[in-house]
Amino acid sequence: MSLKKILIVSGTHGNEINPVWAVNQFSKQKNTIDKNIEYKYIIGNPLAFERGSRYIDNDLNRSFNATKCNRDNSIYEIKRANFLIEKFGFNGIDPCDIAIDLHTTTANMGTSIVMYGRRVKDFCLAALLQHKFGLPIYLHEKDLKQTGFLVEAWPCGLVIEIGSVAQNFYDPKIINRFLIIIGSLRDEINKLKNKQIKLPKDLVIYAHQGSIDYPREKNGNINALIHPERMNQDWRPIKKGDPLFVDMEGNTKPYTGEDTIWPVFIGEVAYKEKNIAMSFTKKELVSVSDYVCEEFFT
Amino acid sequence: MSLKKILIVSGTHGNEINPVWAVNQFSKQKNTIDKNIEYKYIIGNPLAFERGSRYIDNDLNRSFNATKCNRDNSIYEIKRANFLIEKFGFNGIDPCDIAIDLHTTTANMGTSIVMYGRRVKDFCLAALLQHKFGLPIYLHEKDLKQTGFLVEAWPCGLVIEIGSVAQNFYDPKIINRFLIIIGSLRDEINKLKNKQIKLPKDLVIYAHQGSIDYPREKNGNINALIHPERMNQDWRPIKKGDPLFVDMEGNTKPYTGEDTIWPVFIGEVAYKEKNIAMSFTKKELVSVSDYVCEEFFT
Repeated sequence: MSLKKILIVSGTHGNEINPVWAVNQFSKQKNTIDKNIEYKYIIGNPLAFERGSRYIDNDLNRSFNATKCNRDNSIYEIKRANFLIEKFGFNGIDPCDIAIDLHTTTANMGTSIVMYGRRVKDFCLAALLQHKFGLPIYLHEKDLKQTGFLVEAWPCGLVIEIGSVAQNFYDPKIINRFLIIIGSLRDEINKLKNKQIKLPKDLVIYAHQGSIDYPREKNGNINALIHPERMNQDWRPIKKGDPLFVDMEGNTKPYTGEDTIWPVFIGEVAYKEKNIAMSFTKKELVSVSDYVCEEFFT
Repeated sequence: MSLKKILIVSGTHGNEINPVWAVNQFSKQKNTIDKNIEYKYIIGNPLAFERGSRYIDNDLNRSFNATKCNRDNSIYEIKRANFLIEKFGFNGIDPCDIAIDLHTTTANMGTSIVMYGRRVKDFCLAALLQHKFGLPIYLHEKDLKQTGFLVEAWPCGLVIEIGSVAQNFYDPKIINRFLIIIGSLRDEINKLKNKQIKLPKDLVIYAHQGSIDYPREKNGNINALIHPERMNQDWRPIKKGDPLFVDMEGNTKPYTGEDTIWPVFIGEVAYKEKNIAMSFTKKELVSVSDYVCEEFFT
């Protein structure tokens, strides 16, 4: 196997602090050399991390397509995206094959995998982690308003998303979950290489269908909350008539779609500014090619 | 009974959004006139609320002594403190007798009362609420670094502090807790007036002793976390040797004081910038004068 370099990014959002701690702790503890796989570590948005804010000028995790056409260095995150690609990109100074971007959410989603689009290598990596941990996979696609994600700038990459945890709040439980994922990645790739495990042929994914905003007044103020029956119920299916929101007078606003959907990122704090109260997904079975995956990893 | 005007302040910290929702909902639902008690409502820091940040220039809830000597209107919160006193202060345009300031915390403190110093009228109001709900009372005093609290600018005033809830996260459970407190205040004062209740003679309080910071590196970075045994254990006593922090290598830093203490605001996110990992309190019994309280409220 040729040497694979895996870039582990934490603090892409500066107020998601548990991954930064976990990576720091991991890098101090795990100094064993593996001739097959090398980890590189970087804080995505160090200035935002220092300030405890999500970003300085723009969301860094929406700034990676901009680098193709926008070299506006007055925007901190564009400058930072350029730096990360020039340094660790596939054609960079210290090139990495895979990017793992570690995030937290205030939604009660547990540990999950987020992938962007249907790249075959991403499916292989997702299959590896789903095989080991049974994690749900959220496939983000078909959303023209949400583009420019970090991992898309690498040939293969995934987001690990863990919640619920408040922004800027250190939670040992969340830190441990990150440590388990980072720590096992290399082992799992090695097991695959040594034919000790076989990836599942079919992968269950939750494919993004769209997002809905909170009900709002004309002035933009939110005037209904996530319904208590929906709180903390990420990944649980809902059907027509199930409550979504409740207003100040106690009136319920139900889900009106015809199809059963699986909501995620329910009430995510950072998405209020993006006019997203929750996103809707549908369950889907995707076939993964053994051959391609073994080729890629081994 | 002379008319008592009670000022209900929410959003003194702009990212504590549940009280703002609760007050808005309450003011729409409870339009009954009470000849004895009138509620006034105001958002403490509307600009910070709009931006979802704790404050703009300074912490508004540390800006109320500054008004005595500092009229620097370039600082938004000083200007706002002046406005609130000029409008609703005891000698203001629309004078209020009592200020209730509604806050949330990311610490797992449940619903509690915070009072500043040992003003007799504050003890009466605290006794009223403790009698009804059995809420713990945190008495903040003897801390020269932390001064200028909003309620100190009124003849009588308390903070209602509810957690745990993340900043900028709407939680119906937390909103309901605020609604219960606001809704019952007027009823309880009326009951006291009609001699339907008698205040307890003794009040259990948790008196502030000091605060401790996270262990830090020389560059100021936090290098140990709240110990898992301490997480969510606000109000629970600890004694010498009990774990406080744990560093990246798994080393525990214990509490080294001789006296048993009761920690509060454990891991409060907003206090990291104030170099506070938790505050220590001691349990104390305070006598409340029936006579003075009845005089004040009736």
